[in-house]
Amino acid sequence: MSHRFDPGPVEEPFASLARAYPGPPTYDPQSFRVEWGPIFHRGRLDGSARILVFGQDPGQHESIARRCFVGEAGQRVQGFLWKLGIERSYAIANAFLYSVYGQPWSSEVDDLLRRTAIFRGRWLTALLDDSAVKAVVSFGRIAEEAFARWLRTDSGRRFDGHFEPLTHPTMPDASARPGTPEYVEAMKRMLEQWNGGLARIDEVLGADRDRERSLVPYGEALLPDDRKPIPEGDMAAGTPPWMRSLKQWAARIGSTEDTKRATVEVRVPTGERPWE
Amino acid sequence: MSHRFDPGPVEEPFASLARAYPGPPTYDPQSFRVEWGPIFHRGRLDGSARILVFGQDPGQHESIARRCFVGEAGQRVQGFLWKLGIERSYAIANAFLYSVYGQPWSSEVDDLLRRTAIFRGRWLTALLDDSAVKAVVSFGRIAEEAFARWLRTDSGRRFDGHFEPLTHPTMPDASARPGTPEYVEAMKRMLEQWNGGLARIDEVLGADRDRERSLVPYGEALLPDDRKPIPEGDMAAGTPPWMRSLKQWAARIGSTEDTKRATVEVRVPTGERPWE
Repeated sequence: MSHRFDPGPVEEPFASLARAYPGPPTYDPQSFRVEWGPIFHRGRLDGSARILVFGQDPGQHESIARRCFVGEAGQRVQGFLWKLGIERSYAIANAFLYSVYGQPWSSEVDDLLRRTAIFRGRWLTALLDDSAVKAVVSFGRIAEEAFARWLRTDSGRRFDGHFEPLTHPTMPDASARPGTPEYVEAMKRMLEQWNGGLARIDEVLGADRDRERSLVPYGEALLPDDRKPIPEGDMAAGTPPWMRSLKQWAARIGSTEDTKRATVEVRVPTGERPWE
Repeated sequence: MSHRFDPGPVEEPFASLARAYPGPPTYDPQSFRVEWGPIFHRGRLDGSARILVFGQDPGQHESIARRCFVGEAGQRVQGFLWKLGIERSYAIANAFLYSVYGQPWSSEVDDLLRRTAIFRGRWLTALLDDSAVKAVVSFGRIAEEAFARWLRTDSGRRFDGHFEPLTHPTMPDASARPGTPEYVEAMKRMLEQWNGGLARIDEVLGADRDRERSLVPYGEALLPDDRKPIPEGDMAAGTPPWMRSLKQWAARIGSTEDTKRATVEVRVPTGERPWE
Protein backbone atom coordinates (compact mmCIF):
# COMPACT_ATOMS: atom_id res chain seq x y z
CA MET A 1 0.00 0.00 0.00
CA SER A 2 1.52 3.28 -1.08
CA HIS A 3 0.64 6.55 0.65
CA ARG A 4 1.24 9.92 -0.95
CA PHE A 5 2.33 12.85 1.18
CA ASP A 6 3.22 16.50 0.78
CA PRO A 7 6.84 17.41 1.58
CA GLY A 8 5.89 20.92 2.67
CA PRO A 9 7.96 24.06 2.01
CA VAL A 10 11.32 22.30 1.60
CA GLU A 11 12.41 23.83 -1.71
CA GLU A 12 13.36 27.44 -2.35
CA PRO A 13 12.01 30.07 -2.28
CA PHE A 14 9.48 28.51 0.11
CA ALA A 15 12.03 27.00 2.52
CA SER A 16 13.44 30.46 3.26
CA LEU A 17 9.93 31.87 3.67
CA ALA A 18 9.07 29.08 6.12
CA ARG A 19 12.14 30.02 8.17
CA ALA A 20 11.57 33.79 8.23
CA TYR A 21 7.89 34.12 9.17
CA PRO A 22 6.68 37.00 11.36
CA GLY A 23 5.09 36.61 14.79
CA PRO A 24 4.34 39.38 17.29
CA PRO A 25 4.39 42.37 17.01
CA THR A 26 3.58 42.08 13.27
CA TYR A 27 0.80 39.72 14.27
CA ASP A 28 -0.65 41.08 17.53
CA PRO A 29 -1.62 38.25 19.95
CA GLN A 30 -4.76 40.22 20.83
CA SER A 31 -5.95 39.89 17.21
CA PHE A 32 -4.37 36.61 16.12
CA ARG A 33 -3.95 33.16 17.65
CA VAL A 34 -0.17 33.29 17.21
CA GLU A 35 0.20 30.58 19.86
CA TRP A 36 -0.69 27.86 17.33
CA GLY A 37 2.14 28.77 14.98
CA PRO A 38 1.91 29.92 11.36
CA ILE A 39 0.13 27.80 8.74
CA PHE A 40 1.63 28.43 5.35
CA HIS A 41 0.01 26.47 2.57
CA ARG A 42 -1.61 23.42 1.10
CA GLY A 43 -1.01 21.93 -2.33
CA ARG A 44 1.76 22.25 -4.87
CA LEU A 45 4.85 24.35 -4.31
CA ASP A 46 6.73 22.74 -7.21
CA GLY A 47 5.47 24.96 -10.02
CA SER A 48 2.70 22.60 -11.12
CA ALA A 49 -0.16 24.71 -9.71
CA ARG A 50 -2.59 26.17 -12.27
CA ILE A 51 -4.94 27.77 -9.71
CA LEU A 52 -4.14 29.59 -6.50
CA VAL A 53 -6.83 29.47 -3.83
CA PHE A 54 -6.50 32.37 -1.43
CA GLY A 55 -8.37 32.28 1.87
CA GLN A 56 -8.51 34.32 5.06
CA ASP A 57 -6.94 32.45 7.96
CA PRO A 58 -6.48 28.96 9.43
CA GLY A 59 -8.84 27.43 12.01
CA GLN A 60 -8.49 24.70 14.61
CA HIS A 61 -8.26 21.80 12.14
CA GLU A 62 -5.52 23.63 10.28
CA SER A 63 -3.61 24.23 13.56
CA ILE A 64 -3.26 20.50 14.04
CA ALA A 65 -2.90 19.29 10.44
CA ARG A 66 -0.60 22.26 9.70
CA ARG A 67 -2.08 22.77 6.26
CA CYS A 68 -4.52 25.42 4.98
CA PHE A 69 -8.21 24.70 4.33
CA VAL A 70 -8.61 21.17 5.69
CA GLY A 71 -11.84 21.69 7.66
CA GLU A 72 -15.38 22.21 6.36
CA ALA A 73 -14.40 25.21 4.21
CA GLY A 74 -11.52 23.23 2.74
CA GLN A 75 -13.81 20.37 1.77
CA ARG A 76 -16.11 22.79 -0.04
CA VAL A 77 -13.15 24.38 -1.82
CA GLN A 78 -11.90 20.93 -2.79
CA GLY A 79 -15.32 20.27 -4.35
CA PHE A 80 -15.07 23.57 -6.25
CA LEU A 81 -11.68 22.58 -7.68
CA TRP A 82 -13.03 19.13 -8.50
CA LYS A 83 -15.73 20.64 -10.70
CA LEU A 84 -12.94 22.26 -12.72
CA GLY A 85 -11.11 18.95 -13.18
CA ILE A 86 -8.39 20.17 -10.83
CA GLU A 87 -7.35 17.42 -8.43
CA ARG A 88 -3.68 18.20 -7.84
CA SER A 89 -2.63 21.31 -9.77
CA TYR A 90 -3.46 23.93 -7.18
CA ALA A 91 -1.83 25.79 -4.35
CA ILE A 92 -3.65 27.24 -1.34
CA ALA A 93 -2.54 30.06 0.94
CA ASN A 94 -4.22 32.47 3.34
CA ALA A 95 -4.15 36.23 3.82
CA PHE A 96 -3.14 35.67 7.46
CA LEU A 97 -0.64 33.12 8.81
CA TYR A 98 -2.53 32.82 12.08
CA SER A 99 -6.17 32.39 12.98
CA VAL A 100 -7.97 35.68 13.53
CA TYR A 101 -9.09 35.93 17.16
CA GLY A 102 -12.63 37.24 17.26
CA GLN A 103 -14.20 39.11 14.38
CA PRO A 104 -12.21 42.22 13.44
CA TRP A 105 -14.13 45.47 12.96
CA SER A 106 -14.07 46.62 9.33
CA SER A 107 -12.04 49.59 10.51
CA GLU A 108 -9.38 47.27 11.92
CA VAL A 109 -8.99 45.16 8.78
CA ASP A 110 -7.05 47.87 6.99
CA ASP A 111 -4.54 48.01 9.82
CA LEU A 112 -4.20 44.21 10.07
CA LEU A 113 -3.64 43.95 6.33
CA ARG A 114 -1.09 46.76 6.24
CA ARG A 115 0.97 45.35 9.09
CA THR A 116 1.14 41.88 7.56
CA ALA A 117 1.57 42.91 3.92
CA ILE A 118 5.28 42.30 3.49
CA PHE A 119 5.41 38.60 4.27
CA ARG A 120 2.10 37.92 2.50
CA GLY A 121 3.51 39.68 -0.55
CA ARG A 122 6.62 37.50 -0.53
CA TRP A 123 4.50 34.33 -0.55
CA LEU A 124 2.23 35.63 -3.31
CA THR A 125 5.24 36.65 -5.36
CA ALA A 126 6.86 33.24 -4.81
CA LEU A 127 3.63 31.49 -5.81
CA LEU A 128 2.69 33.67 -8.78
CA ASP A 129 5.66 35.50 -10.26
CA ASP A 130 6.80 33.78 -13.43
CA SER A 131 4.46 30.87 -12.62
CA ALA A 132 2.01 28.69 -14.54
CA VAL A 133 -0.92 29.86 -12.38
CA LYS A 134 -3.72 31.03 -14.67
CA ALA A 135 -6.31 32.00 -12.08
CA VAL A 136 -6.45 33.15 -8.48
CA VAL A 137 -9.68 32.59 -6.63
CA SER A 138 -10.12 34.34 -3.30
CA PHE A 139 -12.71 33.21 -0.77
CA GLY A 140 -14.04 35.85 1.58
CA ARG A 141 -13.79 39.62 1.69
CA ILE A 142 -10.55 39.86 3.63
CA ALA A 143 -8.82 37.52 1.20
CA GLU A 144 -10.19 39.55 -1.71
CA GLU A 145 -8.97 42.82 -0.22
CA ALA A 146 -5.55 41.35 0.62
CA PHE A 147 -5.09 40.02 -2.89
CA ALA A 148 -6.35 43.22 -4.53
CA ARG A 149 -3.77 45.18 -2.56
CA TRP A 150 -0.98 42.83 -3.65
CA LEU A 151 -2.09 43.27 -7.28
CA ARG A 152 -1.23 46.95 -6.90
CA THR A 153 2.39 46.20 -5.91
CA ASP A 154 5.24 45.91 -8.42
CA SER A 155 5.12 42.11 -8.31
CA GLY A 156 1.34 42.13 -8.45
CA ARG A 157 1.28 44.24 -11.59
CA ARG A 158 3.30 41.54 -13.35
CA PHE A 159 0.57 38.93 -12.66
CA ASP A 160 -1.49 38.60 -15.82
CA GLY A 161 -3.76 35.73 -14.77
CA HIS A 162 -7.44 35.91 -13.91
CA PHE A 163 -8.62 37.06 -10.46
CA GLU A 164 -11.94 35.69 -9.23
CA PRO A 165 -13.09 36.96 -5.82
CA LEU A 166 -15.81 34.75 -4.35
CA THR A 167 -17.83 34.46 -1.16
CA HIS A 168 -16.24 32.46 1.67
CA PRO A 169 -17.42 28.80 1.62
CA THR A 170 -18.84 28.91 5.16
CA MET A 171 -20.39 32.38 4.93
CA PRO A 172 -23.92 30.87 4.87
CA ASP A 173 -23.14 28.94 8.08
CA ALA A 174 -21.71 32.04 9.74
CA SER A 175 -24.74 34.15 8.84
CA ALA A 176 -27.65 31.80 9.63
CA ARG A 177 -28.55 28.46 11.16
CA PRO A 178 -28.56 25.57 8.64
CA GLY A 179 -32.10 24.72 7.64
CA THR A 180 -33.53 28.21 8.17
CA PRO A 181 -34.89 30.16 5.16
CA GLU A 182 -32.06 32.68 5.67
CA TYR A 183 -29.47 29.91 5.37
CA VAL A 184 -31.09 28.41 2.29
CA GLU A 185 -31.17 31.84 0.68
CA ALA A 186 -27.56 32.66 1.60
CA MET A 187 -26.36 29.32 0.24
CA LYS A 188 -28.31 29.78 -2.97
CA ARG A 189 -26.83 33.25 -3.51
CA MET A 190 -23.32 31.99 -2.82
CA LEU A 191 -23.63 29.05 -5.21
CA GLU A 192 -25.03 31.28 -7.95
CA GLN A 193 -22.00 33.50 -7.55
CA TRP A 194 -19.68 30.47 -7.47
CA ASN A 195 -21.24 29.17 -10.69
CA GLY A 196 -20.33 32.43 -12.41
CA GLY A 197 -16.78 32.10 -11.10
CA LEU A 198 -16.56 28.48 -12.18
CA ALA A 199 -17.53 29.35 -15.75
CA ARG A 200 -14.96 32.16 -15.98
CA ILE A 201 -12.15 30.06 -14.47
CA ASP A 202 -13.11 27.11 -16.65
CA GLU A 203 -12.55 29.24 -19.72
CA VAL A 204 -9.24 30.62 -18.46
CA LEU A 205 -7.86 27.15 -17.70
CA GLY A 206 -8.39 25.86 -21.23
CA ALA A 207 -7.27 22.26 -21.65
CA ASP A 208 -4.91 22.41 -18.68
CA ARG A 209 -6.58 19.99 -16.24
CA ASP A 210 -5.77 16.96 -14.11
CA ARG A 211 -8.90 15.17 -15.31
CA GLU A 212 -11.34 15.50 -18.18
CA ARG A 213 -14.43 17.28 -16.98
CA SER A 214 -17.63 18.75 -18.29
CA LEU A 215 -18.51 21.61 -16.01
CA VAL A 216 -21.54 20.75 -13.88
CA PRO A 217 -22.69 23.86 -12.00
CA TYR A 218 -23.95 23.83 -8.42
CA GLY A 219 -27.68 23.57 -7.78
CA GLU A 220 -29.48 25.84 -5.33
CA ALA A 221 -28.22 23.91 -2.29
CA LEU A 222 -24.85 22.40 -1.50
CA LEU A 223 -25.16 18.64 -1.96
CA PRO A 224 -23.18 16.09 0.06
CA ASP A 225 -21.21 15.25 -3.07
CA ASP A 226 -20.23 18.91 -3.50
CA ARG A 227 -17.77 18.47 -0.64
CA LYS A 228 -14.64 16.50 -1.42
CA PRO A 229 -12.06 15.04 0.95
CA ILE A 230 -8.60 16.56 1.13
CA PRO A 231 -6.20 14.48 -1.00
CA GLU A 232 -3.71 12.31 0.90
CA GLY A 233 -0.93 13.90 -1.15
CA ASP A 234 -1.62 17.30 0.46
CA MET A 235 -0.88 16.17 4.01
CA ALA A 236 2.33 15.53 5.95
CA ALA A 237 3.85 12.02 5.90
CA GLY A 238 1.87 9.57 8.03
CA THR A 239 -1.18 11.81 8.55
CA PRO A 240 -4.14 9.59 9.52
CA PRO A 241 -6.94 9.43 6.93
CA TRP A 242 -9.65 10.94 9.16
CA MET A 243 -7.68 14.20 9.30
CA ARG A 244 -8.57 14.67 5.66
CA SER A 245 -12.00 13.06 5.75
CA LEU A 246 -15.35 14.85 5.44
CA LYS A 247 -15.85 14.66 9.21
CA GLN A 248 -14.96 17.27 11.81
CA TRP A 249 -12.30 16.20 14.30
CA ALA A 250 -10.96 19.31 16.05
CA ALA A 251 -12.81 21.62 18.44
CA ARG A 252 -11.90 24.52 20.68
CA ILE A 253 -13.11 23.63 24.16
CA GLY A 254 -12.88 25.15 27.61
CA SER A 255 -15.09 26.66 30.29
CA THR A 256 -13.30 30.03 30.31
CA GLU A 257 -12.20 32.25 27.44
CA ASP A 258 -8.58 31.62 28.39
CA THR A 259 -8.86 27.84 28.49
CA LYS A 260 -10.86 27.79 25.29
CA ARG A 261 -8.25 29.84 23.50
CA ALA A 262 -5.52 27.50 24.80
CA THR A 263 -7.23 24.20 23.94
CA VAL A 264 -7.96 22.17 20.85
CA GLU A 265 -9.54 18.79 21.38
CA VAL A 266 -8.61 16.30 18.65
CA ARG A 267 -11.02 13.39 18.41
CA VAL A 268 -10.94 10.47 15.97
CA PRO A 269 -14.45 10.64 14.44
CA THR A 270 -16.86 7.75 14.95
CA GLY A 271 -16.80 5.48 11.94
CA GLU A 272 -13.04 6.11 11.64
CA ARG A 273 -11.99 4.14 14.73
CA PRO A 274 -10.16 1.01 13.58
CA TRP A 275 -10.45 -0.68 16.97
CA GLU A 276 -14.25 -0.79 16.88
CA MET B 1 14.02 36.20 13.08
CA SER B 2 14.99 32.93 11.46
CA HIS B 3 13.34 29.65 12.44
CA ARG B 4 14.87 26.28 11.71
CA PHE B 5 12.69 23.34 10.77
CA ASP B 6 13.02 19.70 9.85
CA PRO B 7 11.94 18.80 6.30
CA GLY B 8 10.94 15.27 7.32
CA PRO B 9 11.45 12.16 5.19
CA VAL B 10 11.59 13.91 1.82
CA GLU B 11 14.80 12.41 0.46
CA GLU B 12 15.39 8.79 -0.54
CA PRO B 13 15.43 6.17 0.81
CA PHE B 14 13.23 7.71 3.53
CA ALA B 15 10.64 9.23 1.18
CA SER B 16 9.80 5.77 -0.17
CA LEU B 17 9.68 4.34 3.34
CA ALA B 18 7.28 7.11 4.41
CA ARG B 19 5.00 6.17 1.50
CA ALA B 20 5.00 2.41 2.05
CA TYR B 21 4.34 2.06 5.79
CA PRO B 22 2.28 -0.83 7.17
CA GLY B 23 -1.01 -0.46 9.04
CA PRO B 24 -3.43 -3.26 9.97
CA PRO B 25 -3.14 -6.24 9.89
CA THR B 26 0.65 -5.93 10.41
CA TYR B 27 -0.14 -3.58 13.26
CA ASP B 28 -3.28 -4.95 14.96
CA PRO B 29 -5.62 -2.14 16.13
CA GLN B 30 -6.24 -4.13 19.32
CA SER B 31 -2.55 -3.78 20.23
CA PHE B 32 -1.59 -0.48 18.56
CA ARG B 33 -3.15 2.96 18.27
CA VAL B 34 -3.02 2.82 14.47
CA GLU B 35 -5.71 5.53 14.33
CA TRP B 36 -3.12 8.27 15.01
CA GLY B 37 -1.00 7.36 12.01
CA PRO B 38 2.63 6.23 11.95
CA ILE B 39 5.37 8.36 13.54
CA PHE B 40 8.64 7.75 11.75
CA HIS B 41 11.53 9.72 13.14
CA ARG B 42 13.11 12.78 14.67
CA GLY B 43 16.48 14.28 13.80
CA ARG B 44 18.79 13.98 10.84
CA LEU B 45 17.99 11.88 7.79
CA ASP B 46 20.74 13.50 5.70
CA GLY B 47 23.66 11.30 6.73
CA SER B 48 24.94 13.67 9.41
CA ALA B 49 23.79 11.54 12.38
CA ARG B 50 26.53 10.08 14.58
CA ILE B 51 24.18 8.47 17.11
CA LEU B 52 20.92 6.63 16.58
CA VAL B 53 18.47 6.73 19.47
CA PHE B 54 16.05 3.82 19.31
CA GLY B 55 12.90 3.89 21.44
CA GLN B 56 9.76 1.84 21.83
CA ASP B 57 6.73 3.71 20.51
CA PRO B 58 5.22 7.18 20.17
CA GLY B 59 2.82 8.69 22.72
CA GLN B 60 0.20 11.42 22.59
CA HIS B 61 2.63 14.33 22.18
CA GLU B 62 4.27 12.51 19.31
CA SER B 63 0.86 11.88 17.65
CA ILE B 64 0.33 15.63 17.34
CA ALA B 65 3.90 16.86 16.70
CA ARG B 66 4.46 13.90 14.35
CA ARG B 67 8.02 13.40 15.55
CA CYS B 68 9.49 10.73 17.89
CA PHE B 69 10.42 11.44 21.52
CA VAL B 70 9.08 14.97 22.02
CA GLY B 71 7.37 14.43 25.40
CA GLU B 72 8.95 13.92 28.82
CA ALA B 73 11.04 10.93 27.68
CA GLY B 74 12.26 12.92 24.70
CA GLN B 75 13.39 15.80 26.90
CA ARG B 76 15.40 13.37 29.04
CA VAL B 77 16.95 11.79 25.95
CA GLN B 78 17.79 15.25 24.64
CA GLY B 79 19.63 15.92 27.91
CA PHE B 80 21.50 12.62 27.51
CA LEU B 81 22.66 13.63 24.03
CA TRP B 82 23.57 17.10 25.30
CA LYS B 83 25.99 15.58 27.82
CA LEU B 84 27.78 13.97 24.88
CA GLY B 85 28.08 17.28 23.03
CA ILE B 86 25.53 16.07 20.50
CA GLU B 87 23.03 18.80 19.66
CA ARG B 88 22.16 18.02 16.04
CA SER B 89 24.02 14.93 14.84
CA TYR B 90 21.52 12.28 15.86
CA ALA B 91 18.57 10.42 14.45
CA ILE B 92 15.73 8.95 16.50
CA ALA B 93 13.37 6.13 15.57
CA ASN B 94 11.13 3.70 17.42
CA ALA B 95 10.66 -0.05 17.38
CA PHE B 96 6.93 0.49 16.66
CA LEU B 97 5.39 3.03 14.28
CA TYR B 98 2.27 3.32 16.43
CA SER B 99 1.66 3.74 20.13
CA VAL B 100 1.27 0.43 21.95
CA TYR B 101 -2.27 0.16 23.36
CA GLY B 102 -2.08 -1.14 26.90
CA GLN B 103 0.92 -3.01 28.22
CA PRO B 104 1.68 -6.10 26.17
CA TRP B 105 2.35 -9.35 28.03
CA SER B 106 5.97 -10.48 27.69
CA SER B 107 4.68 -13.47 25.75
CA GLU B 108 3.04 -11.15 23.21
CA VAL B 109 6.12 -9.02 22.57
CA ASP B 110 7.77 -11.72 20.49
CA ASP B 111 4.73 -11.88 18.21
CA LEU B 112 4.46 -8.07 17.91
CA LEU B 113 8.15 -7.78 17.05
CA ARG B 114 8.03 -10.59 14.50
CA ARG B 115 5.03 -9.18 12.68
CA THR B 116 6.54 -5.71 12.40
CA ALA B 117 10.13 -6.73 11.68
CA ILE B 118 10.26 -6.10 7.94
CA PHE B 119 9.47 -2.40 7.89
CA ARG B 120 11.51 -1.72 11.04
CA GLY B 121 14.43 -3.47 9.39
CA ARG B 122 14.13 -1.28 6.31
CA TRP B 123 14.33 1.88 8.41
CA LEU B 124 17.25 0.60 10.45
CA THR B 125 19.07 -0.41 7.30
CA ALA B 126 18.38 3.00 5.73
CA LEU B 127 19.63 4.74 8.88
CA LEU B 128 22.67 2.58 9.57
CA ASP B 129 23.91 0.76 6.49
CA ASP B 130 26.97 2.51 5.12
CA SER B 131 26.36 5.40 7.51
CA ALA B 132 28.46 7.59 9.81
CA VAL B 133 26.53 6.39 12.90
CA LYS B 134 29.03 5.23 15.51
CA ALA B 135 26.66 4.24 18.30
CA VAL B 136 23.09 3.07 18.70
CA VAL B 137 21.50 3.62 22.09
CA SER B 138 18.22 1.85 22.76
CA PHE B 139 15.90 2.97 25.55
CA GLY B 140 13.68 0.31 27.09
CA ARG B 141 13.55 -3.45 26.81
CA ILE B 142 11.36 -3.70 23.74
CA ALA B 143 13.65 -1.34 21.82
CA GLU B 144 16.66 -3.37 22.95
CA GLU B 145 15.09 -6.63 21.84
CA ALA B 146 13.98 -5.15 18.51
CA PHE B 147 17.43 -3.81 17.77
CA ALA B 148 19.18 -7.00 18.89
CA ARG B 149 17.02 -8.96 16.45
CA TRP B 150 17.88 -6.62 13.61
CA LEU B 151 21.59 -7.04 14.43
CA ARG B 152 21.17 -10.72 13.59
CA THR B 153 19.89 -9.97 10.06
CA ASP B 154 22.16 -9.65 7.02
CA SER B 155 22.05 -5.85 7.17
CA GLY B 156 22.49 -5.88 10.92
CA ARG B 157 25.62 -7.97 10.73
CA ARG B 158 27.20 -5.27 8.58
CA PHE B 159 26.73 -2.67 11.35
CA ASP B 160 30.06 -2.34 13.16
CA GLY B 161 29.15 0.53 15.52
CA HIS B 162 28.60 0.33 19.26
CA PHE B 163 25.24 -0.83 20.70
CA GLU B 164 24.29 0.51 24.11
CA PRO B 165 20.99 -0.78 25.52
CA LEU B 166 19.73 1.44 28.35
CA THR B 167 16.71 1.69 30.61
CA HIS B 168 13.76 3.68 29.28
CA PRO B 169 13.87 7.34 30.46
CA THR B 170 10.47 7.20 32.16
CA MET B 171 10.85 3.73 33.67
CA PRO B 172 11.18 5.23 37.19
CA ASP B 173 7.91 7.15 36.68
CA ALA B 174 6.16 4.05 35.38
CA SER B 175 7.31 1.92 38.32
CA ALA B 176 6.74 4.25 41.30
CA ARG B 177 5.26 7.59 42.34
CA PRO B 178 7.77 10.47 42.15
CA GLY B 179 9.06 11.33 45.62
CA THR B 180 8.66 7.83 47.05
CA PRO B 181 11.78 5.89 48.15
CA GLU B 182 11.07 3.39 45.37
CA TYR B 183 11.12 6.16 42.77
CA VAL B 184 14.32 7.68 44.15
CA GLU B 185 15.96 4.26 44.08
CA ALA B 186 14.74 3.45 40.54
CA MET B 187 15.99 6.81 39.25
CA LYS B 188 19.35 6.36 40.94
CA ARG B 189 19.79 2.89 39.41
CA MET B 190 18.80 4.17 35.97
CA LEU B 191 21.19 7.11 36.09
CA GLU B 192 24.06 4.89 37.26
CA GLN B 193 23.41 2.69 34.28
CA TRP B 194 23.13 5.71 31.97
CA ASN B 195 26.46 7.01 33.28
CA GLY B 196 28.12 3.77 32.24
CA GLY B 197 26.53 4.10 28.80
CA LEU B 198 27.57 7.74 28.50
CA ALA B 199 31.20 6.88 29.18
CA ARG B 200 31.25 4.10 26.60
CA ILE B 201 29.50 6.18 23.92
CA ASP B 202 31.73 9.14 24.73
CA GLU B 203 34.75 7.03 23.91
CA VAL B 204 33.24 5.65 20.71
CA LEU B 205 32.36 9.13 19.40
CA GLY B 206 35.93 10.42 19.67
CA ALA B 207 36.23 14.03 18.54
CA ASP B 208 33.10 13.85 16.42
CA ARG B 209 30.78 16.28 18.28
CA ASP B 210 28.58 19.31 17.65
CA ARG B 211 30.01 21.09 20.66
CA GLU B 212 33.08 20.77 22.89
CA ARG B 213 32.13 18.98 26.07
CA SER B 214 33.70 17.51 29.14
CA LEU B 215 31.50 14.63 30.19
CA VAL B 216 29.61 15.47 33.37
CA PRO B 217 27.85 12.35 34.64
CA TYR B 218 24.37 12.34 36.18
CA GLY B 219 24.04 12.60 39.95
CA GLU B 220 21.75 10.31 41.94
CA ALA B 221 18.62 12.22 40.94
CA LEU B 222 17.53 13.73 37.63
CA LEU B 223 18.01 17.51 37.92
CA PRO B 224 15.83 20.05 36.12
CA ASP B 225 18.78 20.90 33.90
CA ASP B 226 19.17 17.25 32.89
CA ARG B 227 16.12 17.68 30.66
CA LYS B 228 16.64 19.67 27.48
CA PRO B 229 14.05 21.12 25.10
CA ILE B 230 13.60 19.61 21.67
CA PRO B 231 15.54 21.70 19.10
CA GLU B 232 13.44 23.86 16.79
CA GLY B 233 15.26 22.29 13.85
CA ASP B 234 13.73 18.89 14.65
CA MET B 235 10.13 20.01 14.19
CA ALA B 236 7.95 20.65 11.14
CA ALA B 237 7.87 24.17 9.64
CA GLY B 238 5.89 26.60 11.79
CA THR B 239 5.60 24.34 14.86
CA PRO B 240 4.87 26.55 17.91
CA PRO B 241 7.68 26.71 20.50
CA TRP B 242 5.66 25.19 23.37
CA MET B 243 5.38 21.93 21.40
CA ARG B 244 9.10 21.46 22.01
CA SER B 245 9.26 23.08 25.45
CA LEU B 246 9.84 21.29 28.74
CA LYS B 247 6.13 21.45 29.54
CA GLN B 248 3.48 18.84 28.87
CA TRP B 249 0.78 19.90 26.40
CA ALA B 250 -1.07 16.77 25.19
CA ALA B 251 -3.30 14.46 27.21
CA ARG B 252 -5.58 11.56 26.46
CA ILE B 253 -8.96 12.43 27.96
CA GLY B 254 -12.42 10.90 28.01
CA SER B 255 -14.91 9.37 30.41
CA THR B 256 -15.06 6.01 28.62
CA GLU B 257 -12.26 3.79 27.29
CA ASP B 258 -13.51 4.44 23.77
CA THR B 259 -13.59 8.22 24.06
CA LYS B 260 -10.24 8.28 25.79
CA ARG B 261 -8.65 6.25 23.05
CA ALA B 262 -10.18 8.58 20.44
CA THR B 263 -9.21 11.88 22.08
CA VAL B 264 -6.07 13.92 22.57
CA GLU B 265 -6.49 17.30 24.21
CA VAL B 266 -3.85 19.78 23.06
CA ARG B 267 -3.43 22.70 25.45
CA VAL B 268 -1.01 25.61 25.20
CA PRO B 269 0.79 25.46 28.58
CA THR B 270 0.46 28.33 31.03
CA GLY B 271 3.44 30.62 30.73
CA GLU B 272 3.44 29.98 26.97
CA ARG B 273 0.29 31.96 26.17
CA PRO B 274 1.29 35.08 24.26
CA TRP B 275 -2.07 36.78 24.83
CA GLU B 276 -1.69 36.86 28.61
